[in-house]
Amino acid sequence: MSLLVVGSIAFDTIETQMGKADSILGGSAIYFSYSASFFKHVNLVGVVGEDFAMEELEFLKARKVGLLGLKVEKGKTFRWHGRYHKDMCGRDTIAVELNTFGSFQPKIPKEYKKSKYVFLANASPQLQQSVLDQIARPKFVVCDTMDYWINNEKKAFLKLIKNIDGLIVNNEEVLQLTGMYHLIGAAREILKWGPKLLIVKKGEHGALLITKKDFFAIPGYPVEVVRDPTGAGDSFAGGMMGYLAQAPDLSFKTIKKALLHGNVIASFTIEDFGLERLKRTASREVKSRYKNLTRMMTV
Amino acid sequence: MSLLVVGSIAFDTIETQMGKADSILGGSAIYFSYSASFFKHVNLVGVVGEDFAMEELEFLKARKVGLLGLKVEKGKTFRWHGRYHKDMCGRDTIAVELNTFGSFQPKIPKEYKKSKYVFLANASPQLQQSVLDQIARPKFVVCDTMDYWINNEKKAFLKLIKNIDGLIVNNEEVLQLTGMYHLIGAAREILKWGPKLLIVKKGEHGALLITKKDFFAIPGYPVEVVRDPTGAGDSFAGGMMGYLAQAPDLSFKTIKKALLHGNVIASFTIEDFGLERLKRTASREVKSRYKNLTRMMTV
Repeated sequence: MSLLVVGSIAFDTIETQMGKADSILGGSAIYFSYSASFFKHVNLVGVVGEDFAMEELEFLKARKVGLLGLKVEKGKTFRWHGRYHKDMCGRDTIAVELNTFGSFQPKIPKEYKKSKYVFLANASPQLQQSVLDQIARPKFVVCDTMDYWINNEKKAFLKLIKNIDGLIVNNEEVLQLTGMYHLIGAAREILKWGPKLLIVKKGEHGALLITKKDFFAIPGYPVEVVRDPTGAGDSFAGGMMGYLAQAPDLSFKTIKKALLHGNVIASFTIEDFGLERLKRTASREVKSRYKNLTRMMTV
Repeated sequence: MSLLVVGSIAFDTIETQMGKADSILGGSAIYFSYSASFFKHVNLVGVVGEDFAMEELEFLKARKVGLLGLKVEKGKTFRWHGRYHKDMCGRDTIAVELNTFGSFQPKIPKEYKKSKYVFLANASPQLQQSVLDQIARPKFVVCDTMDYWINNEKKAFLKLIKNIDGLIVNNEEVLQLTGMYHLIGAAREILKWGPKLLIVKKGEHGALLITKKDFFAIPGYPVEVVRDPTGAGDSFAGGMMGYLAQAPDLSFKTIKKALLHGNVIASFTIEDFGLERLKRTASREVKSRYKNLTRMMTV
């Protein structure tokens, strides 16, 4: 069924222990849609500035990513400059220019208003809510966020998550949201606030899927070299939602498989800067890593 | 087959977010042997001071822990005072008095010299080596360590691990040992130095089992409340080695099951201070959590 992502399109400058990349294409909507396209056609809603050359998105068109919702506005495209710590986990933001993304008011094209699977990438809860309000009757809505919104827009955020199915957060955000110190207790608390399922991203330690009744844990895929972790979370979400949108049901078993596929897609993303490794990834490689991953979890 | 642990016996003073415990029984050999005793009779070699009341160990005798190798020496028993950070992961050592453990020269009783399964708990590599030299023909030797020995006795440590089967380390120690930044690459490097298998403890994130050919990941058991993480690593090792010592073989599948059992035992340890929760744990609870844990990993 139809899959929609609303998120950022950006030019990223990235520094890691393994090198530097200057002003390369990035942003949540880009990572998400390319990742989802391994499994399912996806429609994208986002904004760029006048400095954006549309040829940049040819590789997405080739994967049948729908770009009806791409808006070009006066001004520049969102830019981010980050530097990762040695552990490839922590990072410092060196510079950020929100530009057109800062005033973005997404308008969902008529053709996408009946989307059944919706991913609200990291953005202000108000923006995320306004997207949700434009979708007729979504079947499965998953939302991402970041510490900034939890700190500064908590009320709007708590209102938003009453009406979603899945919330994707990282380890620290779970604790931050609840003011609790222990992940599992905190996760159970958040589930009382609305979401049916909580997906906790733990970087190299994998991810957890927690519902009121169930618990599922997946390890990080053991890649030999990490060159750039940027986009890992959105790739994970993209692989997961892409898999779900083509699956026959939303059973817990199906959602578990979806998480594993997301995990596999993210394992490619981090092997090179930006989308480089992902663009070189063949479907048979995805299948092969999926098989490896499930084997690594089998007693 | 016969199982031996050589390690510390201590009085611990522990402060966590959940409370404080004063001078309670602890030490690697204590946590290990009680944990192993869920599966297998274990013999203990360790030292205490004249301040130690032997009644303290009645609960181990009741579990058939062999105490022939327990030495009482002039002076005091090892004491440690630690304070855990809010995240229940990091901790500061407030005070440490090595006392009799500082000059401990373990002499393995004749009856234990033919032990087949041996756990060398955290101690100086010289002490660990001297134990190993006293065992006739061990079948499976696993060794623990800590950052202090890696920093200060690296040469002796590297010599020791040439002759062991399994090395248990935590995340940070893997990186520290290799000077590398990425866990998986660093783990593969350490496997070139001698150990056939590397067990990476990751606290709440579970553990990894890595060999030259294989990889297995287990999640942390999702306990609702952590009161005191002290002894988790030794409980994990104890459950693992106890399970192995009663298992029919040392296949990768058996070792995987052993890790899962270790993980389950550690999940009880952290639910209360010292050995309190562990002492209240029935075998059927262990079986029940084992079943839960494998279910949580099943796609």
